[in-house]
This record gives sequence, C-alpha cells and structure tokens, in this order.
Amino acid sequence: MIEYSERIAAIERHISQWEFPVEPKNLYDPLRYFISIGGKRIRPLFTLLSAELYNIPIKESLPGASALELFHNFTLIHDDIMDKAPVRRGLTTVHEKWDTNIAILSGDVLMIHAFQALSSYHAETFKRLSIMLNQTAIEVCIGQQMDMDFEQIDTVTEADYIEMIRLKTSVLLGCACAFGGIIGGASESSIKSLYEFGENLGIAFQIQDDILDAFGDSAKVGKQVGGDILSDKKTILYTTFQSKATDEDKAEFSRLSTASNDEKITGIKALYEASGVLGYCIKKQQTYQERAMNQLAKVECNQPKQNLFTLAEFITNRSH
Amino acid sequence: MIEYSERIAAIERHISQWEFPVEPKNLYDPLRYFISIGGKRIRPLFTLLSAELYNIPIKESLPGASALELFHNFTLIHDDIMDKAPVRRGLTTVHEKWDTNIAILSGDVLMIHAFQALSSYHAETFKRLSIMLNQTAIEVCIGQQMDMDFEQIDTVTEADYIEMIRLKTSVLLGCACAFGGIIGGASESSIKSLYEFGENLGIAFQIQDDILDAFGDSAKVGKQVGGDILSDKKTILYTTFQSKATDEDKAEFSRLSTASNDEKITGIKALYEASGVLGYCIKKQQTYQERAMNQLAKVECNQPKQNLFTLAEFITNRSH
Repeated sequence: MIEYSERIAAIERHISQWEFPVEPKNLYDPLRYFISIGGKRIRPLFTLLSAELYNIPIKESLPGASALELFHNFTLIHDDIMDKAPVRRGLTTVHEKWDTNIAILSGDVLMIHAFQALSSYHAETFKRLSIMLNQTAIEVCIGQQMDMDFEQIDTVTEADYIEMIRLKTSVLLGCACAFGGIIGGASESSIKSLYEFGENLGIAFQIQDDILDAFGDSAKVGKQVGGDILSDKKTILYTTFQSKATDEDKAEFSRLSTASNDEKITGIKALYEASGVLGYCIKKQQTYQERAMNQLAKVECNQPKQNLFTLAEFITNRSH
Repeated sequence: MIEYSERIAAIERHISQWEFPVEPKNLYDPLRYFISIGGKRIRPLFTLLSAELYNIPIKESLPGASALELFHNFTLIHDDIMDKAPVRRGLTTVHEKWDTNIAILSGDVLMIHAFQALSSYHAETFKRLSIMLNQTAIEVCIGQQMDMDFEQIDTVTEADYIEMIRLKTSVLLGCACAFGGIIGGASESSIKSLYEFGENLGIAFQIQDDILDAFGDSAKVGKQVGGDILSDKKTILYTTFQSKATDEDKAEFSRLSTASNDEKITGIKALYEASGVLGYCIKKQQTYQERAMNQLAKVECNQPKQNLFTLAEFITNRSH
C-alpha cells in the first residue's frame, strides 16, 4: 500500500506516541508494548480517506481514526485471553507476557482511552461519534460471543455465520468509514452509505480471509495453508459445505476428518472445489464487494473517491 | 435509609428494567442476573440528590445516575475475576456461575452500555458527562491496579494507601455528585465542590470500612470481624501500624501473625488500640468527613442541602 504510506506513517506516529500515564507500570507497560507491535492500521486509514472526501486535513481526522485503532487493540487483548492465544503478530500476547489479570485490566483501560480519544471534537460531533462507537462496540462484543458460542454447536447456518462476521469485524470498518463522513460534515444519506460501504467490504474481506486460509498461496499468505481445515473451524467454506453437500460428499468429509494432516487438507479442498462450495463462496465474496462499491458510488462529496476505491480493491482482491 | 426509599425504588426500577438485548444469552443473561442481585445503589442516589439541589426532576437525573451504577457493576464483575471471588452479595459471581471468558466479555459490554446510558442528554451535557466518566473510569482502573500491586510488596505508605482508595472507590462517588451538578447546570466551582464532597466522603467511607472490619459489632456488620487481620490485608490500620509502631510492638505483631485465629485477632486489635493506631485512624476518617462537609457547604444552589448532609452523615457514621 505504497500509495498510503505517508498516511499510515502519520497514524503510526499518532498511535505510538499516545500519552498513556507512566504509572502504574503493570497497567500501561502492556499497552505501550502491544500497540508498538503494530498492525496494518486499516481502520484508521479508512477514516482518513473517508474524511478526505470532504477536504478534512489529517490532523482533524486522526483523533477519530486513533479511537478506532485503540478500540480494535482493546478487542485483540481481550480476545487473546479468551482464545488462549500465545502469539499475536509474531510476539507474545499480553496475558502470556504478563498475566490474565493484567491483560483484563489493561484491556479495560484501553477501551476507555479509546472513548476518551474523541474528546477533541466539538460537542455535536463528539456526541455523534461517541454514539456510533458505543453501538459498534456493543455489536463487536455480541459478534465475539456468537463466535465463542459457535464453537459449542454442530451446525452453523450461512446466515448466522455472515451475521457473526458482520458484528465481530465488519461493523468496525463501517464505523471507520462513517467516522470520516461525520467528521467531514457529510449528509445523513452519505454517512449511511459510507457505513454500508465499510460494512460490506468487511464481510467481503472476511470471506476472502477464509478462502485464502485454504486456497491461498502459502508463500504469499506467509503461513501453511489449511489451518482452518485442520482445526475444523466453522468458516464460510465449512458452513456452505454442510448445508449444500450431498450425503456422499458428507460421508467422504467425515472420513477425511480423521485422516493425516496432508490428506485431510488436500481431500477437503478437493471436496470444496468439486462440490461447487469454493465457487459459491467466491461469488458470495464478490457480491459483498459489489455491494460495497455500489454504496461508495452513492456517497455525495466534493473530492474524488479514487483512493477509497483503490484501497477497497486492494484489500478484497489480495492474494495474501 | 427510609428517607430515600422512593428514590432508591426509582433507581432500582430503572436499572432492573434496563433493556439489554435478549441475545446472545451467554452475553446478556449474566448481566440481567448480576444487576438483579442488587446493591445499595449509593452512587446513583448521590446523583439524584445532587441534581435536586438544582430542582432537577428524577427522570432527568436517572440516566446519568444509572450510567454510574452500570459502570460500577462492570468493575465488580471484572474485579471478582481478578480476585477469584466465588461470592458477591451472597450469590455466585459471574465467572463462577458461567466462566471467565463470559465474565470478561459481559463486563466489557456492560461498560459500553454504561457510556451509552448518557445518550439522552443534549450534546453539551453529554460531552461533559462523558469526559468526566472517562476520566473517572481510567482512575478506577489505576486504583484497581495499585490495589493488586500492593499485594506483591511489603510496605505501603499511608499516602499510597489513601491514593489507592481515592482512585479505586472515591472518585466514582465524586463523579456521582458532580454528575448531579452538571445535569443541574451548576457553576464550575460548585461542580468542583460537589466532586470533592463525594471524593472526600468516599475516602472517609473506606477508612470507616477498614475500622469496622476489625472493631465493628459483628452482629451489626453481618460477618465475623477480623477478616482483614486474618488475611494480612494492607488496610489503613495495618499501614499506620507499620509506620508508627515501636520495634517492640512490631515484634509482638510478628509473633501474633502466626498465632491461632482468635489470638491473632484479639492480640492485633489490642495492639492497634494501645499503640494509638485506632485513634489515629478514627481521626483520619473524621478529617476526610469534615473536608467533605466543608465542600458541600461551599456548593451554590437554590434548594436546601439537608438530604445530602443527612446521607453523608449516615454513610460515614454507620456502625455496619
């Protein structure tokens, strides 16, 4: 994303120089550590680009953009506890490096700092941004709970799966785009379109993520493909297969589930392709991508939308 | 608190009928359960009474009052995880009744609902209340971290101890009183005085709590006295003793620390009394109580302050 490197550098500076209190060290050292690990800073970038549609300089959109990045980091710290994840972005997670209590409390205070990051906006804008962030944050928690609940049940419908990824990840991208519109003083209908652009793009991104985990080029993805298949994760491929496959294919799937790792991955991928599941999911991904682009087309603004179109294309057509 | 029973009933109705989403059950059932357990609703009562100084009807101060009560309940759910507490208010804690992941996430979403509870205020008031709640919430997390840190160190100074209880519990009472002033349109200096009234009262209340745990009447306190002594908790009595006692008294304290439960409680209480520690702490409690009352006296308003004075007297002069 070389086109956006200056903006990402500005976000990085703003986030990494965040003035957390020095003490207590056990509360704030984990945050300094976790935030410096990095990340793609996709959400704040969408806020900056959306605000640019209305000629808003970076320094005015940065506080809103940073609020979302801080909030996102809070969700990662708490999700890592719940998932018992030892590593994030190649480094030890907070609950592993310190302990669970510290990860709970550091996450809590980070969420509050995210809300506090909006304080520089004047009252009307502050209220609109806060209310949208509140609603989005509640939905993200609901999505995380749905994701945890899915682990305990056998069958997840496609509709439930899409609703889960919409809540767990996509609404925050919708919020990021709408933030740009709110800060830019966009019309109600354009704020709504910006939100739906981000939301649909987020769903397309997540479906793409599921597909790449199985069918990506391992050299480009940067990890062995098939991890989701091995862990029987309820991805879009899995749920589609469960609802559409013939009894014969399901029997073969069942046999493969206890096969060796290589046979399981190769066999289930072949089943996904032959049964039309892969094609169906690619089409689904394209549908959400098109919905996103249609919403972006509807946004009324006084600056060109090319940057947002390019970034949207980039993140949904990626091969890794 | 018979004088306030109607107001407390109004708070109870408002909180217990909070419209959380029905689903996901694993996210919201714990909240419905925990909030219905009850509690004294002291913080929201202070908001209502403070707002009444400016003739504000209950229905206008209830949303702000409820935000604080929801926030307080969030801190209890997460504190109970950190303290591994099995019981709260006589009933099983959330992480015990469900599990730790559910308690983390339910707590998270409850904190967001607390912020969302302020949405009915117009933008200027909303911003002032939000910024104060943000700042208070950060301080509460810092106080909780200090409390956890104190368990790992040998010596805690009186100043550190007072700072910890100020942050962990008293700022929220300060915030509750200031909320009433903000909602009532009080002057800046009166909002500040209301805040400091609540803050100092909170410190006095907490010192009283420490004293009653050792010297209260067990029938009135409703539990065996001396629990803090048995668990070597760093209370105001303990920290004062550590800084003021003679070497001889400290040696006796040391000997008692491994004695039988009854001897330990009786012996250490006798030491606290004979060495002047109890007297010192009672005086300290009175000092904060007086500071609180002096701040309340400074508040400019158009209604009598008697209700607030009475409630403040009641909670700091209680014997249980």
